Amino acid sequence: MDHPTFRQLAHSMADLIADYWEGVESYPVLSQVKPGDVLAGLPKSAPQQGEHSDSNPQQFWNAISADLANIIMPGITHWQHPHFYAFFSANVSAPAVLADMLSSGLGVQGMLWATSPACTELEQRMLDWLGEAIGLPESFLFRSQGKGGGVIAGTASESTLIALLAARERARKSGITAPLTVYASNQAHSSVLKAALIAGIASSSSDNSAVRMIDVDGECRMKTDALRAAMREDISAGRSPCLVVGTVGTTGVTAVDPIGEMVFAINSLGAEHHPWLHVDAAHSGAACICPEMRWMLDGIEGVDSFCFNPHKWLLANFDCGCLWVRDRTHVLGALSVTPEYLRNAASEAGAVVDYRDWQIPLGRRFRSLKLWFVMRAYGVEGLRAYIREHVRLAMLFESLVREDARFEIVAPRTVNLVCLRLREGGDAANRALMDRINGSGKAYLTHTALPRTHATAPGALILRVAISGAQTRERHVRELWEMLRR
Amino acid sequence: MDHPTFRQLAHSMADLIADYWEGVESYPVLSQVKPGDVLAGLPKSAPQQGEHSDSNPQQFWNAISADLANIIMPGITHWQHPHFYAFFSANVSAPAVLADMLSSGLGVQGMLWATSPACTELEQRMLDWLGEAIGLPESFLFRSQGKGGGVIAGTASESTLIALLAARERARKSGITAPLTVYASNQAHSSVLKAALIAGIASSSSDNSAVRMIDVDGECRMKTDALRAAMREDISAGRSPCLVVGTVGTTGVTAVDPIGEMVFAINSLGAEHHPWLHVDAAHSGAACICPEMRWMLDGIEGVDSFCFNPHKWLLANFDCGCLWVRDRTHVLGALSVTPEYLRNAASEAGAVVDYRDWQIPLGRRFRSLKLWFVMRAYGVEGLRAYIREHVRLAMLFESLVREDARFEIVAPRTVNLVCLRLREGGDAANRALMDRINGSGKAYLTHTALPRTHATAPGALILRVAISGAQTRERHVRELWEMLRR
Repeated sequence: MDHPTFRQLAHSMADLIADYWEGVESYPVLSQVKPGDVLAGLPKSAPQQGEHSDSNPQQFWNAISADLANIIMPGITHWQHPHFYAFFSANVSAPAVLADMLSSGLGVQGMLWATSPACTELEQRMLDWLGEAIGLPESFLFRSQGKGGGVIAGTASESTLIALLAARERARKSGITAPLTVYASNQAHSSVLKAALIAGIASSSSDNSAVRMIDVDGECRMKTDALRAAMREDISAGRSPCLVVGTVGTTGVTAVDPIGEMVFAINSLGAEHHPWLHVDAAHSGAACICPEMRWMLDGIEGVDSFCFNPHKWLLANFDCGCLWVRDRTHVLGALSVTPEYLRNAASEAGAVVDYRDWQIPLGRRFRSLKLWFVMRAYGVEGLRAYIREHVRLAMLFESLVREDARFEIVAPRTVNLVCLRLREGGDAANRALMDRINGSGKAYLTHTALPRTHATAPGALILRVAISGAQTRERHVRELWEMLRR
Repeated sequence: MDHPTFRQLAHSMADLIADYWEGVESYPVLSQVKPGDVLAGLPKSAPQQGEHSDSNPQQFWNAISADLANIIMPGITHWQHPHFYAFFSANVSAPAVLADMLSSGLGVQGMLWATSPACTELEQRMLDWLGEAIGLPESFLFRSQGKGGGVIAGTASESTLIALLAARERARKSGITAPLTVYASNQAHSSVLKAALIAGIASSSSDNSAVRMIDVDGECRMKTDALRAAMREDISAGRSPCLVVGTVGTTGVTAVDPIGEMVFAINSLGAEHHPWLHVDAAHSGAACICPEMRWMLDGIEGVDSFCFNPHKWLLANFDCGCLWVRDRTHVLGALSVTPEYLRNAASEAGAVVDYRDWQIPLGRRFRSLKLWFVMRAYGVEGLRAYIREHVRLAMLFESLVREDARFEIVAPRTVNLVCLRLREGGDAANRALMDRINGSGKAYLTHTALPRTHATAPGALILRVAISGAQTRERHVRELWEMLRR
C-alpha cells in the first residue's frame, strides 16, 4: 500500500473513528452475539490474493469497512459507551489516539536507549511528570538523581509481577534462603496470586502457605493486625515474608488499605525481615491527581513500589500502566540478561536507562507519547476537572439510590464506584436485575461478592456502578438510575 | 478534545505519518543524540493548564508538532529507514497502522470473551489463518476442534515464558516433584534464561544446573547428541527435564536447530520423562509463509508449542507475536485465576475462549485487527512476494560480499540475514567499520560474537546485515555494500 493511499485511507479511518464516537450510543453496550457468531462470519482461511490495489484503494476500504460493520461491530462490547459502568473503564481520548497513531507510524522499538533515545527519555520524563502530579515522593522520580524511577509496564498485573520479582531479588541478595511468602488482602486483585504462580512462589491457586490472603474489616480494608500476625506466624514457621501488596481501591468496592499502618506492621518485624511493600492503585491512583484525594496515599513514604493505570481513568488509552520504584537496582537485578548482540557503548557506560531491564518482554512500543499528548492537551488542572466530574456524578448517583428504600448502598464510595443492592430477594433478585439491564443493551454493569466479614451485607452479591466513561454525563447517570428504579 | 477537532487533527497526524515515511531517508538511521539530550529539551513538570482548546485546535497541533520535530525526532533511531539492518526489523505497514488506529479508537479491552466477543473470535480465526499460511499442522489450529489454538502473545519473550509455565504445569500434573531443568542451544535468545529466572526455575543468570545451554555445531545449530546427554545426565542426578527450546533462526546468525532430531532425542528418554518442546521462530518463522522455506519446520508434528512474530518481518507492526499450542489445557492450568468479578455465563459454560488465561496481563488490546488488515490487503501470495524479495536482496548482498577478498561470509545465509567480517584486523577492525557506518547515520547494523565452536571464525565479532525493511530496495543494498567496501 503506497503512501498516497495510506494518506487517503487514514483520513477515512479517522472519520470512521470520529463517527463511531459520535454514534456510540446507538449500539447495545454489551454485545448481544452468541459464542461462535463472529467466527461464523469469517472465512476459514486467509485470502490467497490480496484484496488491496493502489490503483483502486476504495475497493479494499469498502470491503473491509462493510465487514467491520456487519461482522465485527455486532461482536463489540462498547467500552467507550457512556452507559458502560462495568469492571473499571478503559478510557479513550482524542489526544491519546493521536499519540497512538504516531507511535504506530514511527514504528520505533525502544528496548534499549540506543534503539531510540527519545522513546526512553520521554518515558522517563513522563513518569516524573505523572508521579509528581499524583503526589508521589521525590524519591520515586528520576529527577531526584537517586535510585528511583518509573516505567510504563503495560498493566497492573505486570507491575505486580515485576514488584514480586524485585522483592525476591532483594531477598536473595540479603542471603535469605527460606521459602518466601506473599501477603495481600483477600480483596486484592487476582494478579497477586497470578504473579506468585508465575514466579513459582505459589505452586497452585490454593497454595495458602505461600500467598496469604489477609482478612479485611467491615469495609473491605486489610486488617493490619491480621497482616502482622500472619507474617510473624510465617517467620516462626521458618518462612520469610517477601512481598506485601497494599490495594488503593480494591476491584470489588474501591476500598483503600491503610498503607501507613502496613508500613508500621512491616517495620515492627525488625531489620532482619523487611518484605517489599508494593501498592496497587490500578484504578483509584488516577484520583490522586486531585490533592483532596491524596489521603489514599498516606504512608507512601514507606512504600517500595507503586502502580496505577492511566489507561483506566486518566484518558491514556489501554495499555498504559505505570510503575514507580524507589530502588531500581532490584528490578534490574531480577530482569537484566545481556547477550552480546544487545551490548552497546551507551548501556555499558551506565549512562542511560535500558527499559528492557524493567519488564518481561524485550521489545517495547513508544507509549510515553500518549502521556505526553494527554498531559499537555488537558494539563494537570484539566485532568483534575475530569476526575472531579466523575466523582460528582458518583455522589449524585449515590444520593439517588439512597432516596429509594428498596436499595441499599453497601460500601463507602471512596471515588467513583457506587456499590448497591436490592434489599429484598437476595442474590437472585440482584443478579436478575443486572442481567435484565445488561441484556437490554442499554447499560452494562458487573457484580461482585462481598467478603463474609462485611459489615452490612456479608457474602452478598452486589452491583457495581463505576462512573468513569469519557462520554458519561449527568443525563446518563440519571437514565441509569431510571432503568434500575423501574 | 471534541470529535470535530479529533477529525481535523487525525487527518493532520495521518499526513505527518505519510510525510515521515516519504522522507525517512533524510534522517540519520541511528540517532546521534547523547544521553540526556532529549530530557534536557523537556520541562521538568507537567503543564498545569492544558495547551489544547477546541476553539483553536491548530495552536496545540503547532506546539506539539514543533516539539516533535525539534526534541523527539533527533532522538529517534529510524526502524523504518530503508538502511536499517540492525537486530531484526520491526516492520510497519500501512494496513497495520490503519488497523492500529481502529484498535485505539474502539478502545476495546478483550480480557474475556464477553468483554468483546469479536476481539476474541477474530483473534482465534486470524491465528488459524496465519498458522495455516505458514504450514503448521492442523492440531495447532482452533478449527481442528481439538485442544490446539493460538494467541497474540505480544513478544517472543512472553511466548517463551508462557511455554515454560505450561511445561511446568504439565510436569506438576504428572506428579513430578524433582527440580526442573530447561534446555536451549547456547545461541538461543536471552528470553529463555529470562523466563527461567522469572519462573524461579533458575535462581541466577549463572545457574547452570537449571538452564542448560547446549553446544552448537560449526554452523551454530544445536547438537542433539549433546542435548540428549545433558538430559540423561540431569535425570541421573535426580532432576526432571521440563522444557526444551528449539530455535528456528537464531538471533546471532539465523541458524536453524534440527527440530526433528530434537523430537527424537526427547522421545528417546522414554514415557516417564517427556519435556515440553517449544520452537522459537521469532524472526524466521515469517519466511515459512513460502513453501520452499518450510524445511525449517521439519519435525513440527512433534512440537508442543511454536511462536513467531509477524511484527518482525510480516508487516504487522510491533507488537504482534503469535504463539500456538497443541494442548491449551496446560496453558490454562498455569495462568487461569478467576475471581468473582470476572465470572460470567459464557465463560462458566466453557463455550468460549477467554484470552486472559493465555497471558501474563489481564487486559488486552484488539491486536488481531492488524493481522486481518494485513492478510486481507496483501493476501498470502502478496506476503510471499514480500518475503521472497528480501531473500533475493540478501542473496544479492551475499554475492557482492563474496566478490571482495577482504571480506568473508561467516555463516550460511538461511533467509535474509548476511553475516560477514573483515578477514584482516580482527575484532577491532570489524567494530571500527561498524561504528564508522553507524556513526555516519547512513546505515545501521549490529554485531554479534560467534561461539567458540564455530567452524570458520570461532569466537569472532561479526557484522550482521538483516535485510527486511519494508522500504528497502535493491538500490539500498547496493549502497550499503558501497559504504562497506569503501
